[in-house]
Amino acid sequence: MKVLEERIINDGYWVGEGILKVDSFLNHQLDIALMDQIGEEIAGIYDGERIDKILTAEASGIAVACSVSRAMNNKPVVFAKKKKPSTMVDGFYSVPVRSFTKNTESNYYLSKRFLNAGERVLIVDDFLAKGEAGLALCNLAKEAGAVVAGLSAVIEKKEQGGADKIKAAHGIDVRSVAVITNTDGNTIQFE
Amino acid sequence: MKVLEERIINDGYWVGEGILKVDSFLNHQLDIALMDQIGEEIAGIYDGERIDKILTAEASGIAVACSVSRAMNNKPVVFAKKKKPSTMVDGFYSVPVRSFTKNTESNYYLSKRFLNAGERVLIVDDFLAKGEAGLALCNLAKEAGAVVAGLSAVIEKKEQGGADKIKAAHGIDVRSVAVITNTDGNTIQFE
Repeated sequence: MKVLEERIINDGYWVGEGILKVDSFLNHQLDIALMDQIGEEIAGIYDGERIDKILTAEASGIAVACSVSRAMNNKPVVFAKKKKPSTMVDGFYSVPVRSFTKNTESNYYLSKRFLNAGERVLIVDDFLAKGEAGLALCNLAKEAGAVVAGLSAVIEKKEQGGADKIKAAHGIDVRSVAVITNTDGNTIQFE
Repeated sequence: MKVLEERIINDGYWVGEGILKVDSFLNHQLDIALMDQIGEEIAGIYDGERIDKILTAEASGIAVACSVSRAMNNKPVVFAKKKKPSTMVDGFYSVPVRSFTKNTESNYYLSKRFLNAGERVLIVDDFLAKGEAGLALCNLAKEAGAVVAGLSAVIEKKEQGGADKIKAAHGIDVRSVAVITNTDGNTIQFE
Protein backbone atom coordinates (compact mmCIF):
# COMPACT_ATOMS: atom_id res chain seq x y z
CA MET A 1 0.00 0.00 0.00
CA LYS A 2 1.88 2.94 -1.42
CA VAL A 3 0.43 5.72 0.74
CA LEU A 4 1.31 3.83 3.93
CA GLU A 5 4.84 2.98 2.75
CA GLU A 6 5.45 6.62 1.87
CA ARG A 7 4.20 7.72 5.26
CA ILE A 8 6.46 5.21 7.00
CA ILE A 9 9.43 6.47 4.98
CA ASN A 10 8.59 10.11 5.73
CA ASP A 11 7.60 9.89 9.40
CA GLY A 12 9.04 6.61 10.72
CA TYR A 13 12.43 6.18 12.33
CA TRP A 14 14.41 3.48 14.10
CA VAL A 15 15.01 3.89 17.82
CA GLY A 16 17.31 0.92 18.37
CA GLU A 17 16.82 -2.82 18.97
CA GLY A 18 14.87 -3.14 15.72
CA ILE A 19 12.08 -0.89 16.97
CA LEU A 20 10.49 1.36 14.37
CA LYS A 21 8.76 4.43 15.72
CA VAL A 22 5.68 5.57 13.83
CA ASP A 23 3.86 7.22 16.68
CA SER A 24 3.05 10.37 14.74
CA PHE A 25 0.28 8.57 12.82
CA LEU A 26 -0.25 4.98 14.01
CA ASN A 27 -0.06 4.41 17.74
CA HIS A 28 0.09 7.62 19.77
CA GLN A 29 -1.07 10.35 17.46
CA LEU A 30 -3.53 8.91 14.93
CA ASP A 31 -4.20 9.95 11.34
CA ILE A 32 -7.80 8.83 10.88
CA ALA A 33 -7.91 9.46 7.12
CA LEU A 34 -4.93 7.14 6.69
CA MET A 35 -6.42 4.69 9.18
CA ASP A 36 -9.58 4.45 7.09
CA GLN A 37 -7.51 3.81 3.95
CA ILE A 38 -5.74 1.01 5.84
CA GLY A 39 -9.13 -0.34 6.93
CA GLU A 40 -10.28 -0.47 3.30
CA GLU A 41 -7.06 -2.23 2.31
CA ILE A 42 -7.42 -4.92 5.00
CA ALA A 43 -11.11 -5.40 4.18
CA GLY A 44 -10.09 -5.90 0.55
CA ILE A 45 -7.65 -8.67 1.49
CA TYR A 46 -10.50 -10.69 3.02
CA ASP A 47 -13.15 -9.73 0.48
CA GLY A 48 -15.56 -12.60 -0.11
CA GLU A 49 -14.65 -14.42 3.11
CA ARG A 50 -17.04 -14.73 6.02
CA ILE A 51 -15.88 -12.55 8.90
CA ASP A 52 -18.14 -12.30 11.96
CA LYS A 53 -16.01 -10.14 14.21
CA ILE A 54 -12.80 -8.09 14.33
CA LEU A 55 -10.53 -9.03 17.23
CA THR A 56 -7.67 -6.89 18.50
CA ALA A 57 -5.90 -5.91 21.72
CA GLU A 58 -5.83 -2.63 23.57
CA ALA A 59 -4.57 -0.04 23.06
CA SER A 60 -2.89 0.47 19.67
CA GLY A 61 -5.00 -2.10 17.82
CA ILE A 62 -8.30 -0.38 18.56
CA ALA A 63 -8.11 2.44 15.99
CA VAL A 64 -7.12 0.01 13.22
CA ALA A 65 -9.90 -2.39 14.19
CA CYS A 66 -12.48 0.42 14.11
CA SER A 67 -11.45 1.36 10.57
CA VAL A 68 -11.49 -2.27 9.40
CA SER A 69 -14.95 -2.70 10.91
CA ARG A 70 -16.18 0.40 9.09
CA ALA A 71 -14.90 -1.03 5.80
CA MET A 72 -16.61 -4.36 6.57
CA ASN A 73 -20.13 -3.11 7.04
CA ASN A 74 -19.60 -2.36 10.75
CA LYS A 75 -18.80 -5.88 11.90
CA PRO A 76 -18.42 -5.81 15.71
CA VAL A 77 -14.98 -5.09 17.15
CA VAL A 78 -13.83 -6.83 20.32
CA PHE A 79 -10.62 -5.84 22.03
CA ALA A 80 -8.70 -7.88 24.59
CA LYS A 81 -7.94 -5.98 27.78
CA LYS A 82 -4.57 -5.94 29.48
CA LYS A 83 -6.03 -5.66 32.98
CA LYS A 84 -9.07 -7.42 34.29
CA PRO A 85 -11.47 -4.63 35.29
CA SER A 86 -13.34 -5.10 38.56
CA THR A 87 -16.51 -4.95 36.45
CA MET A 88 -15.54 -8.11 34.56
CA VAL A 89 -17.59 -10.16 36.95
CA ASP A 90 -18.84 -12.89 34.67
CA GLY A 91 -16.73 -15.46 32.80
CA PHE A 92 -13.68 -14.43 30.83
CA TYR A 93 -10.89 -15.94 28.77
CA SER A 94 -7.34 -15.18 29.75
CA VAL A 95 -4.05 -15.88 27.94
CA PRO A 96 -0.48 -14.80 28.71
CA VAL A 97 1.25 -12.30 26.45
CA ARG A 98 4.71 -10.80 26.34
CA SER A 99 5.62 -7.31 25.17
CA PHE A 100 9.17 -6.79 23.96
CA THR A 101 8.86 -3.02 23.51
CA LYS A 102 7.48 -2.58 27.02
CA ASN A 103 9.53 -5.42 28.47
CA THR A 104 6.60 -6.87 30.38
CA GLU A 105 4.74 -10.15 30.77
CA SER A 106 1.03 -9.80 31.24
CA ASN A 107 -2.32 -11.28 30.24
CA TYR A 108 -5.07 -10.56 27.78
CA TYR A 109 -8.61 -10.77 29.15
CA LEU A 110 -11.75 -11.15 27.10
CA SER A 111 -15.32 -11.57 28.32
CA LYS A 112 -16.82 -14.89 27.26
CA ARG A 113 -19.92 -13.01 26.12
CA PHE A 114 -18.11 -11.47 23.17
CA LEU A 115 -16.42 -14.43 21.47
CA ASN A 116 -18.36 -17.57 20.63
CA ALA A 117 -17.56 -21.04 19.36
CA GLY A 118 -17.74 -21.19 15.57
CA GLU A 119 -17.45 -17.44 15.03
CA ARG A 120 -14.98 -16.45 12.32
CA VAL A 121 -12.72 -13.66 13.58
CA LEU A 122 -10.28 -11.44 11.77
CA ILE A 123 -7.38 -10.48 14.01
CA VAL A 124 -5.83 -7.06 13.38
CA ASP A 125 -3.11 -5.09 15.11
CA ASP A 126 -0.87 -2.10 14.53
CA PHE A 127 2.43 -4.02 14.51
CA LEU A 128 3.63 -7.55 13.99
CA ALA A 129 7.23 -8.08 15.04
CA LYS A 130 8.04 -11.15 17.13
CA GLY A 131 4.40 -12.12 16.97
CA GLU A 132 3.67 -12.32 20.70
CA ALA A 133 0.46 -10.27 20.60
CA GLY A 134 -0.74 -12.08 17.46
CA LEU A 135 -0.09 -15.48 19.03
CA ALA A 136 -1.93 -14.45 22.20
CA LEU A 137 -4.95 -13.26 20.19
CA CYS A 138 -4.96 -16.57 18.26
CA ASN A 139 -4.86 -18.37 21.60
CA LEU A 140 -7.80 -16.30 22.87
CA ALA A 141 -9.82 -17.24 19.78
CA LYS A 142 -8.86 -20.89 20.27
CA GLU A 143 -9.98 -20.83 23.89
CA ALA A 144 -13.36 -19.59 22.75
CA GLY A 145 -13.61 -22.19 20.00
CA ALA A 146 -13.69 -19.40 17.43
CA VAL A 147 -12.04 -19.72 14.02
CA VAL A 148 -9.27 -17.30 13.03
CA ALA A 149 -10.25 -16.34 9.48
CA GLY A 150 -7.15 -14.21 9.05
CA LEU A 151 -4.56 -12.00 10.71
CA SER A 152 -3.40 -8.67 9.41
CA ALA A 153 -1.04 -6.10 10.87
CA VAL A 154 -0.62 -2.57 9.61
CA ILE A 155 3.17 -2.93 9.74
CA GLU A 156 5.00 -6.25 9.83
CA LYS A 157 8.72 -6.47 10.47
CA LYS A 158 9.40 -9.71 8.64
CA GLU A 159 12.91 -10.32 9.95
CA GLN A 160 11.61 -10.69 13.50
CA GLY A 161 9.76 -13.86 12.54
CA GLY A 162 6.30 -13.31 13.98
CA ALA A 163 4.40 -14.42 10.87
CA ASP A 164 6.36 -17.69 10.71
CA LYS A 165 5.64 -18.39 14.39
CA ILE A 166 1.91 -17.79 13.88
CA LYS A 167 1.88 -19.99 10.76
CA ALA A 168 3.66 -22.77 12.65
CA ALA A 169 1.46 -22.59 15.74
CA HIS A 170 -1.95 -21.90 14.20
CA GLY A 171 -1.63 -22.55 10.44
CA ILE A 172 -2.63 -18.98 9.62
CA ASP A 173 -1.15 -16.93 6.79
CA VAL A 174 -0.41 -13.44 8.10
CA ARG A 175 -1.26 -10.81 5.48
CA SER A 176 0.01 -7.41 6.50
CA VAL A 177 -0.43 -4.05 4.83
CA ALA A 178 3.22 -2.95 4.86
CA VAL A 179 5.98 -5.53 5.25
CA ILE A 180 9.40 -4.22 6.22
CA THR A 181 12.24 -6.60 5.39
CA ASN A 182 15.13 -5.03 7.28
CA THR A 183 15.77 -4.06 10.88
CA ASP A 184 19.28 -2.68 10.56
CA GLY A 185 18.27 0.69 11.93
CA ASN A 186 19.31 2.70 8.89
CA THR A 187 17.05 2.44 5.86
CA ILE A 188 13.47 1.18 5.68
CA GLN A 189 12.95 -1.45 2.96
CA PHE A 190 9.64 -2.99 1.91
CA GLU A 191 8.87 -6.40 0.50
CA MET B 1 -29.22 11.38 21.77
CA LYS B 2 -32.13 9.01 21.52
CA VAL B 3 -30.42 6.08 19.80
CA LEU B 4 -27.69 6.02 22.47
CA GLU B 5 -30.15 6.30 25.36
CA GLU B 6 -32.18 3.42 23.94
CA ARG B 7 -29.07 1.32 23.57
CA ILE B 8 -28.04 2.05 27.15
CA ILE B 9 -31.53 1.05 28.36
CA ASN B 10 -31.49 -2.15 26.28
CA ASP B 11 -27.92 -3.34 26.82
CA GLY B 12 -26.62 -1.54 29.93
CA TYR B 13 -26.87 -2.82 33.47
CA TRP B 14 -25.65 -1.84 36.92
CA VAL B 15 -22.99 -4.03 38.51
CA GLY B 16 -22.83 -2.39 41.93
CA GLU B 17 -21.05 0.64 43.41
CA GLY B 18 -22.68 2.90 40.84
CA ILE B 19 -20.90 1.19 37.96
CA LEU B 20 -22.88 0.90 34.73
CA LYS B 21 -21.78 -1.84 32.41
CA VAL B 22 -22.12 -1.11 28.70
CA ASP B 23 -19.34 -3.30 27.43
CA SER B 24 -21.42 -4.88 24.67
CA PHE B 25 -21.14 -1.71 22.56
CA LEU B 26 -18.91 0.95 24.13
CA ASN B 27 -15.75 -0.28 25.82
CA HIS B 28 -15.02 -3.96 25.20
CA GLN B 29 -17.12 -4.95 22.22
CA LEU B 30 -17.61 -1.91 19.97
CA ASP B 31 -20.52 -0.99 17.71
CA ILE B 32 -18.83 1.16 15.10
CA ALA B 33 -22.05 2.34 13.43
CA LEU B 34 -23.23 3.68 16.79
CA MET B 35 -19.77 5.06 17.52
CA ASP B 36 -19.87 7.07 14.29
CA GLN B 37 -23.30 8.46 15.21
CA ILE B 38 -21.85 9.50 18.57
CA GLY B 39 -18.90 11.08 16.75
CA GLU B 40 -21.29 13.15 14.63
CA GLU B 41 -23.20 14.19 17.74
CA ILE B 42 -20.07 15.36 19.56
CA ALA B 43 -18.79 17.15 16.45
CA GLY B 44 -22.16 18.92 16.29
CA ILE B 45 -21.82 20.19 19.86
CA TYR B 46 -18.60 22.00 18.94
CA ASP B 47 -19.65 23.06 15.45
CA GLY B 48 -18.15 26.44 14.57
CA GLU B 49 -15.45 26.28 17.24
CA ARG B 50 -11.79 25.92 16.38
CA ILE B 51 -10.57 22.46 17.36
CA ASP B 52 -7.02 21.48 16.41
CA LYS B 53 -6.81 18.05 17.99
CA ILE B 54 -8.85 15.37 19.74
CA LEU B 55 -7.31 14.25 23.04
CA THR B 56 -8.27 11.06 24.88
CA ALA B 57 -6.75 8.31 26.99
CA GLU B 58 -6.16 4.67 26.20
CA ALA B 59 -7.92 2.37 25.89
CA SER B 60 -11.67 2.97 25.89
CA GLY B 61 -11.47 6.55 24.70
CA ILE B 62 -9.71 5.68 21.45
CA ALA B 63 -12.69 4.39 19.46
CA VAL B 64 -14.79 7.42 20.42
CA ALA B 65 -11.96 9.80 19.54
CA CYS B 66 -11.54 8.15 16.11
CA SER B 67 -15.23 8.65 15.32
CA VAL B 68 -15.15 12.27 16.53
CA SER B 69 -12.09 12.91 14.38
CA ARG B 70 -13.84 11.44 11.35
CA ALA B 71 -16.80 13.77 11.93
CA MET B 72 -14.39 16.71 12.27
CA ASN B 73 -12.63 16.42 8.96
CA ASN B 74 -10.03 13.97 10.34
CA LYS B 75 -8.51 16.24 12.96
CA PRO B 76 -5.57 14.37 14.55
CA VAL B 77 -6.27 12.16 17.56
CA VAL B 78 -3.75 11.90 20.38
CA PHE B 79 -4.21 9.41 23.17
CA ALA B 80 -2.46 9.47 26.53
CA LYS B 81 -0.72 6.20 27.42
CA LYS B 82 -0.99 4.47 30.77
CA LYS B 83 2.52 3.07 30.63
CA LYS B 84 5.60 4.81 29.35
CA PRO B 85 6.82 2.66 26.45
CA SER B 86 10.57 2.08 26.23
CA THR B 87 10.34 3.80 22.83
CA MET B 88 9.18 7.06 24.42
CA VAL B 89 12.73 8.29 24.46
CA ASP B 90 12.22 11.99 23.90
CA GLY B 91 10.36 14.44 26.15
CA PHE B 92 6.95 13.62 27.53
CA TYR B 93 4.30 15.06 29.79
CA SER B 94 3.13 12.98 32.72
CA VAL B 95 0.22 13.49 35.13
CA PRO B 96 -1.21 11.22 37.86
CA VAL B 97 -4.62 9.62 37.38
CA ARG B 98 -6.81 7.42 39.52
CA SER B 99 -9.19 4.73 38.29
CA PHE B 100 -12.07 3.86 40.58
CA THR B 101 -13.33 0.94 38.48
CA LYS B 102 -9.87 -0.62 38.33
CA ASN B 103 -8.91 0.58 41.80
CA THR B 104 -5.48 1.75 40.68
CA GLU B 105 -3.35 4.88 40.77
CA SER B 106 -1.24 5.41 37.70
CA ASN B 107 0.00 8.05 35.27
CA TYR B 108 -0.88 9.30 31.84
CA TYR B 109 2.05 9.84 29.49
CA LEU B 110 2.02 11.95 26.36
CA SER B 111 4.88 12.74 24.03
CA LYS B 112 5.68 16.45 23.90
CA ARG B 113 5.74 16.22 20.11
CA PHE B 114 1.97 15.76 19.91
CA LEU B 115 0.57 18.55 22.05
CA ASN B 116 1.69 22.13 21.57
CA ALA B 117 1.21 25.42 23.36
CA GLY B 118 -1.78 27.30 21.99
CA GLU B 119 -3.41 24.29 20.34
CA ARG B 120 -7.14 23.98 21.02
CA VAL B 121 -7.98 20.43 22.05
CA LEU B 122 -11.29 18.68 22.45
CA ILE B 123 -11.12 16.05 25.19
CA VAL B 124 -13.35 13.00 24.70
CA ASP B 125 -13.81 9.79 26.65
CA ASP B 126 -16.23 6.89 26.95
CA PHE B 127 -17.32 7.64 30.53
CA LEU B 128 -17.38 10.53 32.93
CA ALA B 129 -18.12 9.52 36.51
CA LYS B 130 -15.96 10.96 39.28
CA GLY B 131 -14.00 12.87 36.65
CA GLU B 132 -10.53 11.55 37.42
CA ALA B 133 -9.61 10.74 33.80
CA GLY B 134 -11.10 14.02 32.55
CA LEU B 135 -9.19 16.03 35.15
CA ALA B 136 -5.96 14.24 34.27
CA LEU B 137 -6.46 14.97 30.56
CA CYS B 138 -7.13 18.65 31.36
CA ASN B 139 -3.92 18.66 33.40
CA LEU B 140 -2.00 17.14 30.48
CA ALA B 141 -3.30 19.87 28.18
CA LYS B 142 -2.38 22.50 30.77
CA GLU B 143 1.18 21.14 31.07
CA ALA B 144 1.54 21.52 27.31
CA GLY B 145 0.11 25.03 27.35
CA ALA B 146 -2.74 23.84 25.15
CA VAL B 147 -6.28 25.20 25.50
CA VAL B 148 -9.12 22.83 26.36
CA ALA B 149 -11.84 23.86 23.90
CA GLY B 150 -14.31 21.37 25.36
CA LEU B 151 -14.82 18.04 27.06
CA SER B 152 -17.38 15.48 26.06
CA ALA B 153 -18.05 11.99 27.37
CA VAL B 154 -20.28 9.44 25.69
CA ILE B 155 -21.94 8.66 29.02
CA GLU B 156 -21.85 10.94 32.05
CA LYS B 157 -23.08 9.79 35.46
CA LYS B 158 -24.02 13.17 36.84
CA GLU B 159 -24.51 12.14 40.46
CA GLN B 160 -20.84 11.22 40.77
CA GLY B 161 -19.84 14.85 40.32
CA GLY B 162 -17.11 14.68 37.71
CA ALA B 163 -18.42 17.56 35.60
CA ASP B 164 -18.62 19.86 38.63
CA LYS B 165 -15.04 19.02 39.61
CA ILE B 166 -13.79 19.77 36.09
CA LYS B 167 -15.74 23.04 35.98
CA ALA B 168 -14.29 24.07 39.35
CA ALA B 169 -10.71 23.13 38.50
CA HIS B 170 -10.50 24.19 34.85
CA GLY B 171 -13.56 26.32 34.13
CA ILE B 172 -14.73 23.93 31.41
CA ASP B 173 -18.37 23.05 30.75
CA VAL B 174 -18.62 19.30 30.24
CA ARG B 175 -21.08 18.48 27.45
CA SER B 176 -21.80 14.77 27.32
CA VAL B 177 -23.91 12.79 24.87
CA ALA B 178 -25.98 10.85 27.42
CA VAL B 179 -26.31 12.11 30.98
CA ILE B 180 -27.55 9.60 33.56
CA THR B 181 -28.97 11.22 36.67
CA ASN B 182 -29.28 8.23 39.01
CA THR B 183 -26.87 5.61 40.32
CA ASP B 184 -29.25 3.61 42.50
CA GLY B 185 -28.56 0.41 40.61
CA ASN B 186 -32.14 -0.21 39.54
CA THR B 187 -33.45 1.98 36.76
CA ILE B 188 -31.48 4.13 34.31
CA GLN B 189 -32.74 7.72 34.12
CA PHE B 190 -31.56 10.41 31.73
CA GLU B 191 -31.37 14.16 32.15
